[in-house]
Amino acid sequence: MPDLLATSRRLREHAIRRATLLVDERRARCNIKTFVQRAASANVILRPHFKTHQSAKVAQWFGDAGVTRATVSSLGQARYFADHGWQDLTLAMGANPREVADYDDLAARIDLGLLVDHPHTIAALASGLNHPVGCWLDCDTGYGRTGVPWHDTDRLHDLVSLIEDAPNLTFRGLLTHAGHGYVAEDPANTFSQTRLRLQEAHTVLKRGLLSAGDTPGFATTRDWSGLDEARPGNFVFYDLMQLEADICTADQLACAVACPVIGVYPERQEAVIHAGAVHLSREALQDGSFGRLLGLGEIGFEGLLPGWELERLSQEHGILKAIGDQARAELVNLRPGNLVLVAPVHSCLTCEQFDCYQTLAGETLPRYHRESF
Amino acid sequence: MPDLLATSRRLREHAIRRATLLVDERRARCNIKTFVQRAASANVILRPHFKTHQSAKVAQWFGDAGVTRATVSSLGQARYFADHGWQDLTLAMGANPREVADYDDLAARIDLGLLVDHPHTIAALASGLNHPVGCWLDCDTGYGRTGVPWHDTDRLHDLVSLIEDAPNLTFRGLLTHAGHGYVAEDPANTFSQTRLRLQEAHTVLKRGLLSAGDTPGFATTRDWSGLDEARPGNFVFYDLMQLEADICTADQLACAVACPVIGVYPERQEAVIHAGAVHLSREALQDGSFGRLLGLGEIGFEGLLPGWELERLSQEHGILKAIGDQARAELVNLRPGNLVLVAPVHSCLTCEQFDCYQTLAGETLPRYHRESF
Repeated sequence: MPDLLATSRRLREHAIRRATLLVDERRARCNIKTFVQRAASANVILRPHFKTHQSAKVAQWFGDAGVTRATVSSLGQARYFADHGWQDLTLAMGANPREVADYDDLAARIDLGLLVDHPHTIAALASGLNHPVGCWLDCDTGYGRTGVPWHDTDRLHDLVSLIEDAPNLTFRGLLTHAGHGYVAEDPANTFSQTRLRLQEAHTVLKRGLLSAGDTPGFATTRDWSGLDEARPGNFVFYDLMQLEADICTADQLACAVACPVIGVYPERQEAVIHAGAVHLSREALQDGSFGRLLGLGEIGFEGLLPGWELERLSQEHGILKAIGDQARAELVNLRPGNLVLVAPVHSCLTCEQFDCYQTLAGETLPRYHRESF
Repeated sequence: MPDLLATSRRLREHAIRRATLLVDERRARCNIKTFVQRAASANVILRPHFKTHQSAKVAQWFGDAGVTRATVSSLGQARYFADHGWQDLTLAMGANPREVADYDDLAARIDLGLLVDHPHTIAALASGLNHPVGCWLDCDTGYGRTGVPWHDTDRLHDLVSLIEDAPNLTFRGLLTHAGHGYVAEDPANTFSQTRLRLQEAHTVLKRGLLSAGDTPGFATTRDWSGLDEARPGNFVFYDLMQLEADICTADQLACAVACPVIGVYPERQEAVIHAGAVHLSREALQDGSFGRLLGLGEIGFEGLLPGWELERLSQEHGILKAIGDQARAELVNLRPGNLVLVAPVHSCLTCEQFDCYQTLAGETLPRYHRESF
């Protein structure tokens, strides 16, 4: 059974003093292995999204499992992973015409894929690139964020023609991110619809690969047929949003933030930690809470501690609520200086708030740090 | 009149390629001057909170206006500003017993104030400090986050006695953060109540200074009587939350994020920028939106562009909605590669996402970067 005070003791043994991002390497490697095996079974290329972890060391865990291609969401991430030996990267954000010279520099040294959905962007790439780049056409299969709607065959045709006519651009295929799968009642159903819509567009275009990327779809469905490439990312760590949506189990949660208690208020069943929006992000669960507490056992993370909710957040403070008898009994024994382990609501956003991870074995794993200009 | 495409042109002249945090120095200095003058008129010490800007250069603008004391919200910030010459800092977060040795190092070189509300924390400081530290007692005047309730006179007395008995701790007074003023119908009324409650506690204790800190209270009220010290912070830049609550005017907004457009979708009255939760934070206005667009004129930021809302955010994407005829007409002329200027919902959280500011004069202002361990 996970235990609040035993967790605090173990975190002290890790010499933790302030909010620290921990990763359970065993769990993360297990999550990676599961997806690598599923992709192999499905005969689909796994090009995992590295925006969740943004760490060359975590990327190496993917490498150890046989992964050689990855997806990123910014030029800076692409450069970082290229610097760490990744030779085949897709930048799965709509290309930014203001960064064409930077893309060109990168394309000189790796196999770079870019994403477009606008003639102006294709023209900017066509005129600015001196090195070959793979070009994906962004296809909107229902999320409604970016891309050409899958049924708009005229625009799909026109844009593919523009890509094919552009020097240094090679049409790779249709790429979609079915982000609505994250909030769908039935993510497997959304995934199935996504695949059908991509195939519908492909039937018209008659060329190119089909690439889809979202953890909920790939995690809940074994049938990946019709796809050539899978780009999920969150699965490496998962988080409470995925748990709430039944996309993962609690024993797959692989990152969490160790936080010091700085206030204890039994009269209102609350404790306060020095960890707020700047550490955890303001992403909330459906009930409005910002996190739950995990246990830390002998060999790694344990389950969720019942009755503890991170109820409110300000810039640097988090307010923990003890609900029910067990949590309230634990609260009475809590002291400033104790440490708790907060499971994040959305691991991609929480990890972004830290420069590095600490593994439970005490290793420091640096992360890419976003450049401001 | 603020103009979308003229703003994009001017941002291009600033050589902006990707999401960049801009500060309008003239506006920020003007905001600082206003508060310095009000504090002088009220005969109250201004100890501004530097957690909003976290920049030694911006701190110098305060220094230029005569400010010599400041407030911070982490040990790391305190070290950073001490390294930049600030000799009198209050760390206005409940002290963390795990950082006592670090506080002691800092207290060896500056005049350090700490905040407590628990006997265990006072005991940890008493046993671990070798250098004198000023000790504030955290008083809860109604926010309900941290501190001893103002009416709990027994606990206030007991804790003051513990502080006074501890070697190297000097009781400074009662410190409160009336954070509920940020969401109050009438912040001036909350402020008045806060002052009365602090004075009520002071009448019982008969010693120490009274320190309060929140921008809404100090910005909406000229009568600061009863207080010794003011610790507002947000006022240096303000933001859309403050504007929505009538605490500032649009011409006081002093920071914004320049962002590249990467997608344009006139059929759904939307455009997409490469700036998401990792750039802007997920803090939302009451209508659920994540930002508005500002104009950039010849001499600095202009007003809000009517009809533009940052309607949705994902990790790296922001979805702009054009509402009304003017914004829709502007949308038709928008292209990937254009630049827009997003006024943040909560400037403290948005600025935290960047390493540095760029002034409109082209100067780079580095920010404190949070240490991960």
